[in-house]
Amino acid sequence: MSVVIPREFVFAAVHCGIKRDPAKRDLGLVVSRRPATAVGVYTQNRIFAAPVGWDRAHTPSDRVRAVVVNSGNANACTGEQGYRDAAEMARLTGEFIGATADEVLVLSTGIIGEFLPMDRISQGIRLAASQLSSDPQAFLAVAEALLTTDKYRKVAGSELQGSGQVVRLAGMAKGAGMISPRMATMLAVILTDAAVDPEAADRLLREAVNQSFNCISVDGHMSTNDTVLFLANGSSGVAVGGELSREFFAEKLTEVCQSLARAIVSDGEGASHLVTIDVSGCKTREDALQVARTVANSPLVKTAITGADPNWGRIVSAVGYSGVPFDPQKLTLDVNGFLLYQHGRPIPFDPEAVSRSIRQSPEVFVHIRLEEGTASARFWTCDLTTEYVRINADYHT
Amino acid sequence: MSVVIPREFVFAAVHCGIKRDPAKRDLGLVVSRRPATAVGVYTQNRIFAAPVGWDRAHTPSDRVRAVVVNSGNANACTGEQGYRDAAEMARLTGEFIGATADEVLVLSTGIIGEFLPMDRISQGIRLAASQLSSDPQAFLAVAEALLTTDKYRKVAGSELQGSGQVVRLAGMAKGAGMISPRMATMLAVILTDAAVDPEAADRLLREAVNQSFNCISVDGHMSTNDTVLFLANGSSGVAVGGELSREFFAEKLTEVCQSLARAIVSDGEGASHLVTIDVSGCKTREDALQVARTVANSPLVKTAITGADPNWGRIVSAVGYSGVPFDPQKLTLDVNGFLLYQHGRPIPFDPEAVSRSIRQSPEVFVHIRLEEGTASARFWTCDLTTEYVRINADYHT
Repeated sequence: MSVVIPREFVFAAVHCGIKRDPAKRDLGLVVSRRPATAVGVYTQNRIFAAPVGWDRAHTPSDRVRAVVVNSGNANACTGEQGYRDAAEMARLTGEFIGATADEVLVLSTGIIGEFLPMDRISQGIRLAASQLSSDPQAFLAVAEALLTTDKYRKVAGSELQGSGQVVRLAGMAKGAGMISPRMATMLAVILTDAAVDPEAADRLLREAVNQSFNCISVDGHMSTNDTVLFLANGSSGVAVGGELSREFFAEKLTEVCQSLARAIVSDGEGASHLVTIDVSGCKTREDALQVARTVANSPLVKTAITGADPNWGRIVSAVGYSGVPFDPQKLTLDVNGFLLYQHGRPIPFDPEAVSRSIRQSPEVFVHIRLEEGTASARFWTCDLTTEYVRINADYHT
Repeated sequence: MSVVIPREFVFAAVHCGIKRDPAKRDLGLVVSRRPATAVGVYTQNRIFAAPVGWDRAHTPSDRVRAVVVNSGNANACTGEQGYRDAAEMARLTGEFIGATADEVLVLSTGIIGEFLPMDRISQGIRLAASQLSSDPQAFLAVAEALLTTDKYRKVAGSELQGSGQVVRLAGMAKGAGMISPRMATMLAVILTDAAVDPEAADRLLREAVNQSFNCISVDGHMSTNDTVLFLANGSSGVAVGGELSREFFAEKLTEVCQSLARAIVSDGEGASHLVTIDVSGCKTREDALQVARTVANSPLVKTAITGADPNWGRIVSAVGYSGVPFDPQKLTLDVNGFLLYQHGRPIPFDPEAVSRSIRQSPEVFVHIRLEEGTASARFWTCDLTTEYVRINADYHT
């Protein structure tokens, strides 16, 4: 995938020795040459990592200059020392790029409960700061430095044309479940050269996240480090809500987030299918999400998909215990376009045809329809394979 | 295990052809020779099976004479025909034992979405009614007729001595998760010859269930058929709350329910460990249960136990996303008596020693302590193995 880099952002990534394998990058910098609006959305976990605490305290902002990321160590459950280390990462980065600590945000992912090797990180930041470049390869290098046990890097981008102007959006993410013991999961950074004020950026990011990263589940285990950052440095000279319509920008931002979110689920540990769950006909979007999330997190639904089994009973009964009120006589279900259950009753169907359609495609579409209202939601998950269990059970600390 | 049969209860079980294997019993009767108090606790699933609807409509009662059970077919998602079939099972049973339909309760478990083979069931009820016996072997035969893919039958009992009188309690249960596609799960019948009025019985059963069947999870998927029935026929001449203290009886009833509940989790599909999760120091018991349930349902916690991995990060982060408010600096965790995490900080420990203690025992004890209050809860679950995935993915409809 080709990535178009938003103007006035530069990048660098290095191996500094947090990860053992010297071929693997483990530290990266994203630098904006001019102060950027920056907002974040963070894990709801009450046990949250030090960099989450740092970033929360420093967003929304209208003058962020950089994001420093490291993989291999999550700096989580590390107490006051951990917070001092996160602050020091920000300070060091600022020192090399000519900014103050509170103009730098921090992302960490990897092992929980160990202190950062600050000497190596310090050397890594110095080295990376000397290599900053706007080359797309440098952007991809940072996307690599984010990864832990992901099988591939996850990037997405978009160019928006509007009244002769061009605005660029680019995003990177990591996450594949909590594959390795003590791993934290999902991180993303979205960049644009549009001009957006912090308040508008915050709303835009929340809307986009609610339709992307908040609609995915690999194993239902919320990490201590989940963070999505959105930086807008205005270098295009185009203002969102001015020259560029807010709705159009919001749509593109959501698309970039959805693309990254789907990539995370596709790379879900051991996954053999990406499953899209559409729920419609609900009273509220929250109801629709709740139904989708319950179905997505059922190990019986996931293993049925692994086995290419058109097992409507598992899906229907998961809808039933979602906690959302509905009339069971008005529940309808189709899988890959095959109607399996209609108005509370099973429908005769050819199980072999449905099974084949699941087996032969890496994507499965589940559509659950209630008749309680007009709200809907789309949710993504993956199936549950013996490989998931092997990955998570056979790795010993 | 020897079972002591409460007085004036008789039993019979037969193979009538719902299951294919003629060696497997699939229909059973529990009959009280005198009208019994009967109460039930039922699935909270909005999609519930016909027999659940029938039993709900006929409990609490002070004149139940029988429970008819079948396995191999859950009579779930079968609409009005399903309800008529459940009613017919009750009517037929009543006809053979001299009772009316509304004095008979019904339990079904097995495939979802297929109609009952009523001709076979009718023959089975007739045959079983001719073989009723108070022999413990007949009780065990009914406990077998309840099973679907359980590896073993689950019974428990107790004899209560009080002021020269003897009261007997006996229970049977089935359940091992929703092993086979379209299987419904947990059923239990508890019998006593104590005298208990319906209102007291209802309270007693709810209290016992809240500390037993409501505190277990194999895969977090709630079935459409879950039912616990409690019948008290008074044949001992001893009244609960009269000659026999209510507290003592409640304790014994809870013990019988806990024994059956633990047996269900031990038989959890693919399980290699029974995990007891104690949560203490909470504001309310509901908070403690919520923390325990969240930890119990995390596939990352389950697979860590499968792999004998003392992975406190997975447990601590699951507590963090349970939704229960607490001060992370006051969280303490031990596993099998080894202190791993204290007051918000990891504690140095010998990972090999903890791993060995998990590997070498079929039981694991997790103790999570908060410092928010004095409420606590105990919860049981099992680990997640590749065998679970194989069972649930490799079985095709």
